[in-house]
Amino acid sequence: MGKSILITGGVRSGKSRLAERMTLGLGQPAVYIATAEAHDDEMAERIAQHQARRGPEWHTLAEPLDLVGALRNSDSGAPRLVDCLTLWLSNLMLGDHDWQTASDALAAAIPELSAPVVFVTNEVGAGIVPENALARAYRDAAGLVNQKIAAACDELWLCVAGHPIKVK
Amino acid sequence: MGKSILITGGVRSGKSRLAERMTLGLGQPAVYIATAEAHDDEMAERIAQHQARRGPEWHTLAEPLDLVGALRNSDSGAPRLVDCLTLWLSNLMLGDHDWQTASDALAAAIPELSAPVVFVTNEVGAGIVPENALARAYRDAAGLVNQKIAAACDELWLCVAGHPIKVK
Amino acid sequence: MGKSILITGGVRSGKSRLAERMTLGLGQPAVYIATAEAHDDEMAERIAQHQARRGPEWHTLAEPLDLVGALRNSDSGAPRLVDCLTLWLSNLMLGDHDWQTASDALAAAIPELSAPVVFVTNEVGAGIVPENALARAYRDAAGLVNQKIAAACDELWLCVAGHPIKVK
Repeated sequence: MGKSILITGGVRSGKSRLAERMTLGLGQPAVYIATAEAHDDEMAERIAQHQARRGPEWHTLAEPLDLVGALRNSDSGAPRLVDCLTLWLSNLMLGDHDWQTASDALAAAIPELSAPVVFVTNEVGAGIVPENALARAYRDAAGLVNQKIAAACDELWLCVAGHPIKVK
Repeated sequence: MGKSILITGGVRSGKSRLAERMTLGLGQPAVYIATAEAHDDEMAERIAQHQARRGPEWHTLAEPLDLVGALRNSDSGAPRLVDCLTLWLSNLMLGDHDWQTASDALAAAIPELSAPVVFVTNEVGAGIVPENALARAYRDAAGLVNQKIAAACDELWLCVAGHPIKVK
Repeated sequence: MGKSILITGGVRSGKSRLAERMTLGLGQPAVYIATAEAHDDEMAERIAQHQARRGPEWHTLAEPLDLVGALRNSDSGAPRLVDCLTLWLSNLMLGDHDWQTASDALAAAIPELSAPVVFVTNEVGAGIVPENALARAYRDAAGLVNQKIAAACDELWLCVAGHPIKVK
């Protein structure tokens, strides 16, 4: 069974950079599984920045919804980096998919993978309760997804100002 | 003097589940002191979910305001779980009670209890400054209450994606 | 080279108090470099509370923008406490200064200081994505500034409910 790692933290806390280092430390070349879709200019700019930082040791796949499929299809030795679970959850919720079933399936698939995988997610639940009901539902869902994937992974790290704290 | 523990973390970070495990580890049956009031359907649903998860080893008390009274009246051996301090603070502020005096009194009462107590609270101060002045006042108050109760307790834990970090 | 420390955490998590203790532990008297400007009554009140807590062992400087200059001009032995970087970033952004150049310059200056310095900053990126584009830009910038200064400092601490976690 391949090693599985979850990295969480606030926005711009250095999670992606840490995840890239950890993934390349597990083997090279590596596979970058991007869950982001470029819906607007701000997001397109952020995706471009992330890609510019990664070098030729990465092969990139885009998979906004079917992470279990993407992980099984790429399960041939090279480590995978999934960036990130909160965007994946957004894609599921905006497309009216059943995120609870999807996240249970992902958690169940992790221990059966043979190549390593590193997941990036976000802490979104440490602010004031949002006034918007959809935002409240999303942050509840994000917290539950993080718990499920953290329980399934071998390691859990919290990133603070670019530095990791090992939680599990 | 009974052991006293404070557990904090973001929403849906697994705090309540951790608190239940810790409380039952201190003795069974245990007393669940709920500070929540079911003001609306969303909150009623959340309370029902929490209750469904707890089993017959729990005796439930509802106390939205007088936590010192509830802890003294139930101070006969069984461990207590107070869930949660941020809702208690909300109840105090919405009812125009003096939350500073109330939280000082709670902090002063903790070392005098003979049975154990586990408190759950929330991290609400790690987002952007809210535009709403009441929300700003609430998150300041929540931070101060968390500091006071943490100072009075024997242990402080931060919950991240379902996993605890021991802070104190 | 003087010791350099960065302390981060949510609002009202006890960062300033911890920073004051750590600074005085590095030498007395100490210099308090305040980045806050009293734009409104709420902020004036907060500044007054902070000043009232500090005693005669502090010499206070106000410097909303030029932190590199303030640190070099006060670099004669006594430890400095800079409170805080997120207000400094706000001042830079509101005044249309180039915060990226300014924060690179600050990070580069830190290893060249001969007296110790303790910086306080805020975690602002662990809530829901703000609807306001300026708030999103600010929390991204704050995360990047925190990473840069954390990388330049000898120590990094996360404050939770008044208690520190050593991250670096």
